[in-house]
Amino acid sequence: MNNVYVLGGSQTDFQRNWSKEGKNEIALLKEAITDGLDDVGISFEDISQLNSKNKVAFYVGNFIAEEYIQQGHIGALITEVDSSFYGVPTARYEAACASGSVALDAAITKVKTGDYDVAIVVGWELMKTVNSKVGGDILGRAAYYEKEGKGIDFPFPKLFGKLADEIIEKYQLDEQRFMDSLSIISNKNYNNAKRNPLAQTRNWFMDLEQAKMRGTETNPSVGGRLAVSDCSQVTDGAAVVVLASEKYMKENYEKEFPIVKGYGHRVAPMLFEKKMKDNNNSPYILPWTRQAVEDAYNRSGLSVDDIDFFETHDCFTSSEYAAISAFGITDPGKEYEAIEKGITDFNGEKPINPSGGLIGSGHPVGASGVRMFLDLYKQLTNNAGSYQLEKSDNGMMLNIGGSATTNYAFILGKE
Amino acid sequence: MNNVYVLGGSQTDFQRNWSKEGKNEIALLKEAITDGLDDVGISFEDISQLNSKNKVAFYVGNFIAEEYIQQGHIGALITEVDSSFYGVPTARYEAACASGSVALDAAITKVKTGDYDVAIVVGWELMKTVNSKVGGDILGRAAYYEKEGKGIDFPFPKLFGKLADEIIEKYQLDEQRFMDSLSIISNKNYNNAKRNPLAQTRNWFMDLEQAKMRGTETNPSVGGRLAVSDCSQVTDGAAVVVLASEKYMKENYEKEFPIVKGYGHRVAPMLFEKKMKDNNNSPYILPWTRQAVEDAYNRSGLSVDDIDFFETHDCFTSSEYAAISAFGITDPGKEYEAIEKGITDFNGEKPINPSGGLIGSGHPVGASGVRMFLDLYKQLTNNAGSYQLEKSDNGMMLNIGGSATTNYAFILGKE
Repeated sequence: MNNVYVLGGSQTDFQRNWSKEGKNEIALLKEAITDGLDDVGISFEDISQLNSKNKVAFYVGNFIAEEYIQQGHIGALITEVDSSFYGVPTARYEAACASGSVALDAAITKVKTGDYDVAIVVGWELMKTVNSKVGGDILGRAAYYEKEGKGIDFPFPKLFGKLADEIIEKYQLDEQRFMDSLSIISNKNYNNAKRNPLAQTRNWFMDLEQAKMRGTETNPSVGGRLAVSDCSQVTDGAAVVVLASEKYMKENYEKEFPIVKGYGHRVAPMLFEKKMKDNNNSPYILPWTRQAVEDAYNRSGLSVDDIDFFETHDCFTSSEYAAISAFGITDPGKEYEAIEKGITDFNGEKPINPSGGLIGSGHPVGASGVRMFLDLYKQLTNNAGSYQLEKSDNGMMLNIGGSATTNYAFILGKE
Repeated sequence: MNNVYVLGGSQTDFQRNWSKEGKNEIALLKEAITDGLDDVGISFEDISQLNSKNKVAFYVGNFIAEEYIQQGHIGALITEVDSSFYGVPTARYEAACASGSVALDAAITKVKTGDYDVAIVVGWELMKTVNSKVGGDILGRAAYYEKEGKGIDFPFPKLFGKLADEIIEKYQLDEQRFMDSLSIISNKNYNNAKRNPLAQTRNWFMDLEQAKMRGTETNPSVGGRLAVSDCSQVTDGAAVVVLASEKYMKENYEKEFPIVKGYGHRVAPMLFEKKMKDNNNSPYILPWTRQAVEDAYNRSGLSVDDIDFFETHDCFTSSEYAAISAFGITDPGKEYEAIEKGITDFNGEKPINPSGGLIGSGHPVGASGVRMFLDLYKQLTNNAGSYQLEKSDNGMMLNIGGSATTNYAFILGKE
C-alpha cells in the first residue's frame, strides 16, 4: 500500500464571527481552501491539470450545516469556490464532532489505493448563525436526540458533567483533587492558546484561580460539576489539509513531509447510559476510546513511548482527562498524577494540546479533526511558530463525536 | 489491490410508511440490517468475532435525517440495533440523493486496502415524517438552498423540468416526440415495478395514455413540462449490501460472487444555471455525468458493449433520458431513438431500471444508491426473481445527487 504524505494546509482565525462579518459559507470555504492550496504551492491551474487525469478529490467534514445554514449536499458547495473544482470528486463525511476525521480517513484511504494523487480535506462549521440556546439544541443531535437531547437545555455540558461524575465514582477519586485536575487542564489549554495566533481565546482572561471558581458569576456552572471554564466555546471556522501520494510528492517537491502512520476508528454505544454500562468490565471509563488509540498504535507499530505530543478532543475538561489514560500516558484512574506533575504541560514530557485544544483554540465542530491533524503537521515540520514544541518526531490526535461515541485516532510522524 | 466481492444484502418494502406504522429509524435499521446479514449468512456472533480483530465496519448513507427526524451523528445510530455493533467503526456519508454511493465508495476502498474484511453498507431515509410541502423544502437543501430552494415550492421538479427544456433546446428536438419519450420512460418504469415485490408503486395504476395526460386532474403538472408521472415519489426505506475481501469470501463460502469492477465520481457545478453554461462545449447535456460513467468504464476496462443492464437515477424522466447517452447507449441528442425502439425496455437490448428505478420502485433518497447496487447484485446472481433478466454478466448503475451535481457510477460483474 502507498504511503500518504501530509503536504500542509491552513486554518481560519477561530476568533472570527463570520455572521457578524456578513460572510457566508462560500466566503469561509474560499478563504480556507485558497490559503490551504497556497500553503502547499498548488494553484487552481494545477487542480485543473490533476482533474483532467481524475487525480484530485475533495473530502468535506461538516457536522450539521443542515441546521446552522439550511444546507445539505455539503460536499458540492466547493464547486462555488472556484470553477477549477468543476468535475472534481467531492462528498461530505459526518460523525458529529468527529466529522473531520471521517473525511480524513476516506481521503487517506483513497490516496493509499492510488485512486487519487492529491486529496484535499476541508473541515468546517459555521455555528454563530444561531443563538446559544438554539445552538445547544442543534448540538443535541450529536447525541441520540429523542432520548438525550430533546427538550433539554444544553445537553452536552450535562453529558460531560455526568462523565466527570462517573470518573469520580469508577476510580473512587477524591472529588477536590479531581476537580482541581480539571481546572489545571482548562488553565493549561487557555495558556497554550495564548501562544497560538489563530486561537479563539488567545486574548481571553483565564487563570487557575478563575478555573476553580466554578458556580460563580464569572465562571457559571454549565452541567453538573462542570463550569464554563471546563467547556469549549461556540466557534466559526474551517481547517484544510492537503494529502498526496509518494509519486506526486516526489515529482513536485524536494523537501520531506510527514506521513500518516496509523489510525483507529471505534464507535461506542450512542447512549451515554449504555456507554457506562458497557465499561463495567474494563479498567477504562471509555474502553472504545482506548481501543481506537490502541488500534492506531498497532497499525503504526508505535507505542506511547514513541509519541512526542498529542492533540486531543477536550470539548470538556473531562474528555481530556479520560484521554490521558486512553493514550497510555498513565494507567486508568491515575490521570490526575500526570496532570499534577505537569507531564501534559506545554513543556512537559507528553504535551497535550500545545495548540490550546478545543477549549483554548476553539471548536468549530466539523473542522476540529482537521485542525488537530493540521496541528500535528505543523509541529512535525517545525511550522508551529510561537507554539512550536522542541521534540516532535511523532504526534497523535484523538477526535471524538457525541459523548465519546465516535472515536478517531491518527498518528503522523517523520518518515 | 484486493478485489471487492458483493455477498448480498436486502431492502425494505418501499411501499411501507414507517411513521404510520408508528415505527422509528431504529426499527427500520434493525429490520434492514438483520435481513441483510441473514441474506449473507453472517450472524451477530460473527460480527463480534470480526470486530474483535477490527475487521468489520459499517458505512451509512443518509441525506438529511437532521431535518426529517432531528437526528445527526447518523452512523452511530447502528449501535442501537444490536450490542454486537458496539465498537464497530461506523460513520455517515452524504451527497444528497447520491449519499448511498458515497458510503459504497468508502466501504469498497477500505476493503480494497485490506483494512476491513467485511463492510456493511446501509442506505436509508425516512421521508414520510413530514408533509409534502415541508418535504419539498427539505429536499431543496440538495440544491444550493439559498439560491435555488428557499421560498420555492417543490424546487426539484422545477429544476428537472428545466433540464427537459434545456434538452429540447440543445438538441433542437421536436417537443412532442421528446415528451412522448419521457412518457415511455415513465410507463416502462411503472411496468417494471409491477414485477418487483418490493417496489413502492407495484399496485399503482399507470399506462402510457395516463403518462401522456400531463396537466390533467389525474396527472397534474409538477415543474415546467413535467407531471406527477415523470417524478419519483416520497418513499421510506432502507437498503443494505455486504461487501467482503477475497480472503473472507474464500474462507466462508463455496459459491462465487460478483466483484466491483470500476467506479466513477464527478461533481458538476452545484447551481443548475452554471451546469448549463458549463456544458456549452460538450455534446452532452450533463458532461460530468458522462465523465463519471466514462471513468467507471476506464477503471473496469469495459465499454457499453460489455454492459448487459443498467440501474439509473430516474428521479425524473428527464434524468433517465440524459443517462441514456451518458451510458453510451446512443449518441447525445439521439436518446429518443433508443426509447422508441424499446432498447431500454425490460426485454430490450440494454434494459434500464429492470427494478422499476426510482419512479417505479421508490426513492428513499439516502437508500437509492445502495438499492441500485443491490439490484445489480441480484441480477448478476440470478436472485432477482420475478424481475430477473436473461443476460446479466455485467451491470452498471448511475446515482446522482442534486440537479445532477454529484454523479456516481459503479460497474459490478461476474469475476
